[in-house]
Amino acid sequence: QSNVTVSGIADAAVRVVSNQDRGSVKSLVSGSNNTSRLIFRGTEDLGDGLSAGFHLEHGIRLDSGEAVQSTQFWDRRATVSLASRTLGELRAGRDFVPSYVAWSRHDPFSYVGVGGSTNLISATPNGPIRNTFGTAANTVVRSSNAVQWIAPAGLGGFEGGVLVAAGEGGTAASGQAKVMGLRAGWAGGGFNLGAAHTRSENDRTEAAGAFKDTTLGGGWDAGVARVSLAWRRFDQADARQTNWLLGAWVPVGVGEVKFSYLKADFSGRVGRTDIGANGSRQLAAGYVHPLSKRTAVYATVARIDNDGASALAIPGGAAGLAAGKRSTGTELGLRHNF
Amino acid sequence: QSNVTVSGIADAAVRVVSNQDRGSVKSLVSGSNNTSRLIFRGTEDLGDGLSAGFHLEHGIRLDSGEAVQSTQFWDRRATVSLASRTLGELRAGRDFVPSYVAWSRHDPFSYVGVGGSTNLISATPNGPIRNTFGTAANTVVRSSNAVQWIAPAGLGGFEGGVLVAAGEGGTAASGQAKVMGLRAGWAGGGFNLGAAHTRSENDRTEAAGAFKDTTLGGGWDAGVARVSLAWRRFDQADARQTNWLLGAWVPVGVGEVKFSYLKADFSGRVGRTDIGANGSRQLAAGYVHPLSKRTAVYATVARIDNDGASALAIPGGAAGLAAGKRSTGTELGLRHNF
Amino acid sequence: QSNVTVSGIADAAVRVVSNQDRGSVKSLVSGSNNTSRLIFRGTEDLGDGLSAGFHLEHGIRLDSGEAVQSTQFWDRRATVSLASRTLGELRAGRDFVPSYVAWSRHDPFSYVGVGGSTNLISATPNGPIRNTFGTAANTVVRSSNAVQWIAPAGLGGFEGGVLVAAGEGGTAASGQAKVMGLRAGWAGGGFNLGAAHTRSENDRTEAAGAFKDTTLGGGWDAGVARVSLAWRRFDQADARQTNWLLGAWVPVGVGEVKFSYLKADFSGRVGRTDIGANGSRQLAAGYVHPLSKRTAVYATVARIDNDGASALAIPGGAAGLAAGKRSTGTELGLRHNF
Repeated sequence: QSNVTVSGIADAAVRVVSNQDRGSVKSLVSGSNNTSRLIFRGTEDLGDGLSAGFHLEHGIRLDSGEAVQSTQFWDRRATVSLASRTLGELRAGRDFVPSYVAWSRHDPFSYVGVGGSTNLISATPNGPIRNTFGTAANTVVRSSNAVQWIAPAGLGGFEGGVLVAAGEGGTAASGQAKVMGLRAGWAGGGFNLGAAHTRSENDRTEAAGAFKDTTLGGGWDAGVARVSLAWRRFDQADARQTNWLLGAWVPVGVGEVKFSYLKADFSGRVGRTDIGANGSRQLAAGYVHPLSKRTAVYATVARIDNDGASALAIPGGAAGLAAGKRSTGTELGLRHNF
Repeated sequence: QSNVTVSGIADAAVRVVSNQDRGSVKSLVSGSNNTSRLIFRGTEDLGDGLSAGFHLEHGIRLDSGEAVQSTQFWDRRATVSLASRTLGELRAGRDFVPSYVAWSRHDPFSYVGVGGSTNLISATPNGPIRNTFGTAANTVVRSSNAVQWIAPAGLGGFEGGVLVAAGEGGTAASGQAKVMGLRAGWAGGGFNLGAAHTRSENDRTEAAGAFKDTTLGGGWDAGVARVSLAWRRFDQADARQTNWLLGAWVPVGVGEVKFSYLKADFSGRVGRTDIGANGSRQLAAGYVHPLSKRTAVYATVARIDNDGASALAIPGGAAGLAAGKRSTGTELGLRHNF
Repeated sequence: QSNVTVSGIADAAVRVVSNQDRGSVKSLVSGSNNTSRLIFRGTEDLGDGLSAGFHLEHGIRLDSGEAVQSTQFWDRRATVSLASRTLGELRAGRDFVPSYVAWSRHDPFSYVGVGGSTNLISATPNGPIRNTFGTAANTVVRSSNAVQWIAPAGLGGFEGGVLVAAGEGGTAASGQAKVMGLRAGWAGGGFNLGAAHTRSENDRTEAAGAFKDTTLGGGWDAGVARVSLAWRRFDQADARQTNWLLGAWVPVGVGEVKFSYLKADFSGRVGRTDIGANGSRQLAAGYVHPLSKRTAVYATVARIDNDGASALAIPGGAAGLAAGKRSTGTELGLRHNF
């Protein structure tokens, strides 16, 4: 009766982060090429093109042995689903929101590490994310309590999905939001294009309107290199954050060199505070050297520059970076898929 | 050296609960047909009819990716055992108490979901459960620190078990109780009968006597339908809760229709408060449609009516149901065994 | 793509601990012969004598179903590594420190249970361990954030390793320390010898110097019995703790009888308090009876005597043992490797 695949990723790196005027900190970090994780999953063929499946995915801090989310063991995914070859998949549980799915594929650093686009998509500084969710769980990456429909394969390169999550009568403080999202994309002939919109509501958005997370992106695999360009905007009340991402993957021998340039601009106001002068830019370069299909060593360098009241930093540095200052990070790591 | 079976259940449902005068709440919930879980277990043949085994079982909130018990990862079971074909099994660790084992098999809704008998077996309202354990862990379902003997199979339909758990010098506040329990049952010719008694002691029972949990139940499989009748009583000091359960399972085509009627009556006093007017009734109906031996879709509706100071509600509704008011719930779900 | 071995240990025992003038407490305990655990691990052959691997190891309280460390699920080990047959292994993540590896192999009770040497290696009473780490995580057994080199096999019986862990700019209160350690050993002809030194620094050692953990030990397998002798010293500022361990393993029929004698002496001062009169001795005897290669029953008895302000006790007894008093423990258990 058992039909379970156990797999995962173990990824650790040595990192040095220098925050301007705050010195540098050395650390061992987890998941800089790809988040360390343990996965249990399986599918059951029900006949007639129907199948059932489950997916449980736990994020690991390989440096300390802790769960990535202390109170949410299966923080990465916990779903049960029913899939039809022609009608698509119905999936229930915790999973990525559509805007994250559409955005993250354009990030050469997979949203993680010193060069990941997560570094500029943060509840700090104050802006639409902070204003909507405070420091509690936000829906910029995942949502609990979700039901999704995911389009089937074989629609001439089209892909898409719809997600609805119940707010369950909870509040931002309890980490609950009512979510609706959809994404659509097309891929063919080395090109891909995609767009997504995700809308979250909680007790903090009741008066001023929902948190809106919209993204648009495309990529082109030219053989000699692969490039991507993506845009993502967060809106809530009078506050707006706009993100740009330019990415490149360049095969070099057996390995791959990667670049990304990220830009986050703020505009509007939070309460009476004008946030229009705030913003950050991140430049990252990395190299991944495979030792096999499953195992690779990698190195990445990245730098964040801040404007206005922004004080975004590469994770792992000394606390207290001042507004407008610079943060730089370097890391050297080993990633093993199992 | 490895001999491990990995299995489990992924179960999610969409639920709507209406609490009288409090509106309705939509949610995604986990484990409404059968609790979502991940199991690691194995046995080793030691020869001469002897075997050793272990069982680790973790409860999952599939809707949010959390553990069912935040501080007890293996909340459902954590045991090591030595079993003899003729002498039975000696089992040590965390497991079900005898009264739960004898009671829950008579519940068509397996103690879970909008129709589960757990809804009326609660530390709210005040009664023997609350008076003994407060809001800390109680022994109505499981006990930690237990040693059990479980009768072997092949005794002419007889089954039984004895459980002893150490209080470890702890208190109700630390979730510890000294437990003694036993159960005996007989099954044959489509009939089954069983009884169990479990007795728990902690620092709150020292003056007024132990918490006593006694149950008696039987079932009959008439082919066209299966029916059950069970009774369970909680006694402590001057407080008493008496539960009645009437259950039915009716095959309909490839599926199964289920019904249950539950009644919880309180009598006696907690301190100077007379709890005799309190009580609740629950009526539930459901249908389970199998897509395979391992996967099913299901729907359940249930209603709780309260008397006196009782304010029991279907889980997942708005807080603040007033005493004596009604709660109704509906759910539609997917359960997949792996 | 999956290549995972799932294994572990389920170990539970019934224990009685009597603390002088405090009465006795009965309990069910986990991991008295060997810590209950669940392991996921695997290796990948990369060719040319190179391999990659991962190891995730979770400690379980089998008595209650809890994790051994509430905030550190993979408390026992979480590593990714790259190994060369000739150059040794490079390992990153959470793992044992060198001094623990060199010391624990000489303990017939594997550092656990009523007779384990952990009982005298404690942050209580005040001494170098408490003075350096307070009651937060210490590096006497493991370190997070570590990079290690482990010598390859086949060096004529030589073995060794070097560990470096980043303090990550953290403090003792946040459980972080900068660690450097090394160990070297030799085994051949029934003899083994080993030494290790581990040095930890945090914000509490800045003024007075690092926490130093030095150990030296040897063993001899004489066929009729195996014996060991080990010494371990903790130094920090003006405080010192010196531990002696004498161990013996004696085959008796199919089983094994084990003895250990432990002594912990304190000297110097913590602040203005002279700790020189403090100290403890532990005497333990046990028998392990295998039912198979994977499963055994065991019994152990142990006694701790305290001097001065020391009040060390066998775990599981009543709180409040007075300084200089005695603690005794007995346990009977079942251990199953899976």
